[in-house]
Amino acid sequence: MEINGARLMGNIRTLGTLGINETGRSRLAASDEDKAGRDYVKGLFEEAGLEVVVDRIGNLYGIWRPEGCPDVDPVMTGSHIDSVINAGQYDGDLGVLSGLEVIRTLQEAGFRPSRPIVVVAFTNEEGVRYQPDMMGSLVYAGGQPLDEALDSIGTDGTRLGDELARIGYAGTIDPGDIKPATFVELHIEQGPILDVEGTQIGVVESLQGIHWKRITFHGAQNHAGTTPTSMRRDAGLAAAKVNVREREHALANDKFLCTVGTIALEPNAVNVIPDKATFTVDLRSPVKETLDSEDAGLEEYLLQVAEQEGLTVESEQLTCFDPVPFDEGVCQRIEASCEARGLSHRRITSGAGQDAQMMARICPTAMIFVPSVNGISHNPEEYSRDEDCVNGANVLLDVLVSLSE
Amino acid sequence: MEINGARLMGNIRTLGTLGINETGRSRLAASDEDKAGRDYVKGLFEEAGLEVVVDRIGNLYGIWRPEGCPDVDPVMTGSHIDSVINAGQYDGDLGVLSGLEVIRTLQEAGFRPSRPIVVVAFTNEEGVRYQPDMMGSLVYAGGQPLDEALDSIGTDGTRLGDELARIGYAGTIDPGDIKPATFVELHIEQGPILDVEGTQIGVVESLQGIHWKRITFHGAQNHAGTTPTSMRRDAGLAAAKVNVREREHALANDKFLCTVGTIALEPNAVNVIPDKATFTVDLRSPVKETLDSEDAGLEEYLLQVAEQEGLTVESEQLTCFDPVPFDEGVCQRIEASCEARGLSHRRITSGAGQDAQMMARICPTAMIFVPSVNGISHNPEEYSRDEDCVNGANVLLDVLVSLSE
Repeated sequence: MEINGARLMGNIRTLGTLGINETGRSRLAASDEDKAGRDYVKGLFEEAGLEVVVDRIGNLYGIWRPEGCPDVDPVMTGSHIDSVINAGQYDGDLGVLSGLEVIRTLQEAGFRPSRPIVVVAFTNEEGVRYQPDMMGSLVYAGGQPLDEALDSIGTDGTRLGDELARIGYAGTIDPGDIKPATFVELHIEQGPILDVEGTQIGVVESLQGIHWKRITFHGAQNHAGTTPTSMRRDAGLAAAKVNVREREHALANDKFLCTVGTIALEPNAVNVIPDKATFTVDLRSPVKETLDSEDAGLEEYLLQVAEQEGLTVESEQLTCFDPVPFDEGVCQRIEASCEARGLSHRRITSGAGQDAQMMARICPTAMIFVPSVNGISHNPEEYSRDEDCVNGANVLLDVLVSLSE
Repeated sequence: MEINGARLMGNIRTLGTLGINETGRSRLAASDEDKAGRDYVKGLFEEAGLEVVVDRIGNLYGIWRPEGCPDVDPVMTGSHIDSVINAGQYDGDLGVLSGLEVIRTLQEAGFRPSRPIVVVAFTNEEGVRYQPDMMGSLVYAGGQPLDEALDSIGTDGTRLGDELARIGYAGTIDPGDIKPATFVELHIEQGPILDVEGTQIGVVESLQGIHWKRITFHGAQNHAGTTPTSMRRDAGLAAAKVNVREREHALANDKFLCTVGTIALEPNAVNVIPDKATFTVDLRSPVKETLDSEDAGLEEYLLQVAEQEGLTVESEQLTCFDPVPFDEGVCQRIEASCEARGLSHRRITSGAGQDAQMMARICPTAMIFVPSVNGISHNPEEYSRDEDCVNGANVLLDVLVSLSE
């Protein structure tokens, strides 16, 4: 069996034209632009004869339970169709529309599933308008109370629950009422590894843990021309030392990533030694022990460099997610499909957060990655080749078949 | 002979009460606050029977040529009375008021100078309202055309020439018409060396050269979670490496100072690798060869780190002043006074810019430093002990006597 590549890519391109405003393609959760995308997807679900259901957090389901299909826990696939500001057209959309395409292919082939197949578009994966991100799947998996999520106040001052009602996507069933036997998500890699290596499919066996810290060094503001080097208490230098040290650690361990993405110096004047440096550190690893020990090692280093440089230091933990291991059995089904289709593949870790990480809390879960050209994502230049998207959808087809035969 | 310490400190405290507004003690050049200070100093000059002269850039002179004094090139002393925003009460004021105090002491002692003694308050040393700093002495020494200086537009949109006229300090003689035989300036150190060492007098033998650079690294904006370390092009990391490297160089050479005082990352997001880092580097040395070779070495390192990290780099020279050596003969006169008075002393380099550096272009010049407690300056907490100020004024007395006997 093969999915209909032209139909899939046509749907992706059509969805990609919806929700464009003066900031580019910006389908922020529960916005008018999101509604345009949802209406399109809902129409496709209906066209395919799926039962359309919306839950109270706005997750949109298309349920395929053909006549004679046993009423057992379904296999579920999907992703999200909300986007960042000025986004590309693959992130999320590929997973939702491929799930639908798989069902249409199975319908056309006269496949008789042993369990229902559900395709889902989760609400607010990106977390741009309302925090936290991956909210729809988080609430679904029981990780956040529904009412708290609905009460989220957006960057524009709106309440999520009100906005869902306004756009017509405040559903009635409770999130989690549909209990999947397995969840599989197809997604673009959003990183460069598959593209650089020329590998066709990423078998996503885990999702990195993430620790975010906000670190502040306090020193002494002094004249750059009159303060001898030995008497300086330079908060900016200490921040620089941390950045250089963390890069050395990341180079020494390919299961560890570290990024200093923001920094602010005070007073931030050319000829004044900074007395305050505030910066963030983003630590990631698929291995919990690595992440925890790198975090602890960094905290020790902060104290050490503060003592060396005559500073005080504060460190605030902004985010702390453990790594998520995906299901080995589902990974093996993905690999079996790649082997059968002659597609090159490798085990890979998701560097970004995903709805699948929430679903892994409640059922066996894994993901399929296809290459992102140059690793570009969250950008209009985001691009995955048609053949790669089609390969990914065909692997998803095989895996869903194997889970519902 | 001894100066009248109580009178000197009383004058400093009185001048310190003038020009206070909602931003603290802020006698910005040619402001109403500056006028208040100038009027006070001018009144003191007149009280001492000095001839008061103002030149076209607003430099204010008190000339002591008692009857019988030959009409030859004078010895000159002084400093400035303009201030930064929210300043202390010693920077500049000490030098001007000590010059006056020396003349009054000599008058009271019946001293008969062999040449006139002039005390000057130069216009706009701080450069806060109008750039460049040290403008009055720069124009005096022929380093900037008078009309260009008068046409300077301030941070508040005003023209310096208009403001000088408005406050009544647009004089008629040309700057430089008074040709000094020697210039000696008493000033607070504005750094911690004398205070930390417990040394009473700094014999300022040179003034550091200053190079300012604005450096920009350009890399690639990528996802902090999905971009392997080896594929990163992290502009912020390169900036950190420069900071750490420059500190190592400064630690290895006590005639070299380096400060990274400002930095901005783009896009400055926790989970995005910065594709742009813009920062400044302030390089200083009293030795021209050191400053030039450190500058060249830094430029080489920028290219090297850009290549290592897959970046491009731009470097813009914002300021480039050579070091200024002061006059050895004047330094020896300062030392002789310290020895005679039993004051501890050391040779020192001025880390900050000074009017004396401009005067060194046209006549033998040196400076006398007194300790700044904790090295604090440009701040209401700026403090030099009375005994240290009085010691400095007594040394100035001896030096001026030796130059005009």
